[in-house]
Amino acid sequence: MFQQLFKSIQEKVIVTHEEMELCKTFFIPKKLRKKQTLLQEGDICIYNAFIEKGILRSFYIDEKGNEHLVQFAIEGWWITDLSSFLTNSNSIYTIEALEDSELLLLTTAAREALMNQIPMFERYQRLLLQNAYIANQARINSALTETAEEKYINLGNAYPGIVKRVPQHMIASYLGLTPETLSRVRKQISNKS
Amino acid sequence: MFQQLFKSIQEKVIVTHEEMELCKTFFIPKKLRKKQTLLQEGDICIYNAFIEKGILRSFYIDEKGNEHLVQFAIEGWWITDLSSFLTNSNSIYTIEALEDSELLLLTTAAREALMNQIPMFERYQRLLLQNAYIANQARINSALTETAEEKYINLGNAYPGIVKRVPQHMIASYLGLTPETLSRVRKQISNKS
Repeated sequence: MFQQLFKSIQEKVIVTHEEMELCKTFFIPKKLRKKQTLLQEGDICIYNAFIEKGILRSFYIDEKGNEHLVQFAIEGWWITDLSSFLTNSNSIYTIEALEDSELLLLTTAAREALMNQIPMFERYQRLLLQNAYIANQARINSALTETAEEKYINLGNAYPGIVKRVPQHMIASYLGLTPETLSRVRKQISNKS
Repeated sequence: MFQQLFKSIQEKVIVTHEEMELCKTFFIPKKLRKKQTLLQEGDICIYNAFIEKGILRSFYIDEKGNEHLVQFAIEGWWITDLSSFLTNSNSIYTIEALEDSELLLLTTAAREALMNQIPMFERYQRLLLQNAYIANQARINSALTETAEEKYINLGNAYPGIVKRVPQHMIASYLGLTPETLSRVRKQISNKS
């Protein structure tokens, strides 16, 4: 535990060994088995989860019963329903483990306390928010402007680990494609190469 | 100048009078006449702009030549192409004044320096990013789930100042509606009341 978290923090800010040890005490370790949920749609999201091991996804189900995949997250990433976590509102997403996973959970109160006690943790959080905002923006632009083939190739280039680890119908859902379209796109790509 | 900025900062964090005075020295005052641009699509967005007076919008033009309104911003708000500003990439948005406006501009370097010299400014930036993320998420959810009438009523309730100050075709573009649909929706609402 904590190896991935320390790596993530040290990549972004400078913290002392003592601060790292203090940091540990704010997190709640949690194991999830494959298919277990961290958050159910409609509940208030009380945790921001850092992934030490495994892979999770967040999704929502629309009025017609169709599932829409919002985010994948693997080792070294954070996952939460950020709007619910930050505003104490009901979540619109469900968050579920796609493999047996090991998490480090941070409550809103623990996050606030950590930022007060370790100012560099505030900077770390600010940088995470910047990255989340940029990723969100890139995703919206991709949805608006890229073809199905471009979406699939770009996802594979950016996150090869994800494309190999999750079922294809989830990749299709994440890209906003039908499974049939994704299957056709994959055949076209393999015929070209 | 600076009244709105100080109000915005003091609403979110605690800073001393000396810090406020120091803060002033990092901003570049700028006036824009109506229809002048702060940023042209394709340029790198080097400023995060705080609005002391006036109203601006950001928009992009798609491949078919259609204009899409991304954001309005009035007194007390920030506006920028955040992805471009944070990553030094080419902007996809144009930012334009809709009235004669007075801005306070912050470069990336000045922003970094301010966060280093005044730790509470880092917290202020973190809170702005949280709000921007939450607003983005709310906008996506609104686009996915609300009817045209709900979108218009909710915008008017949340930002009455904006709906009264900008042309209706821009409101339509912001809501993802045709001007004809918005006109029909407004008639329906006025017939009901």
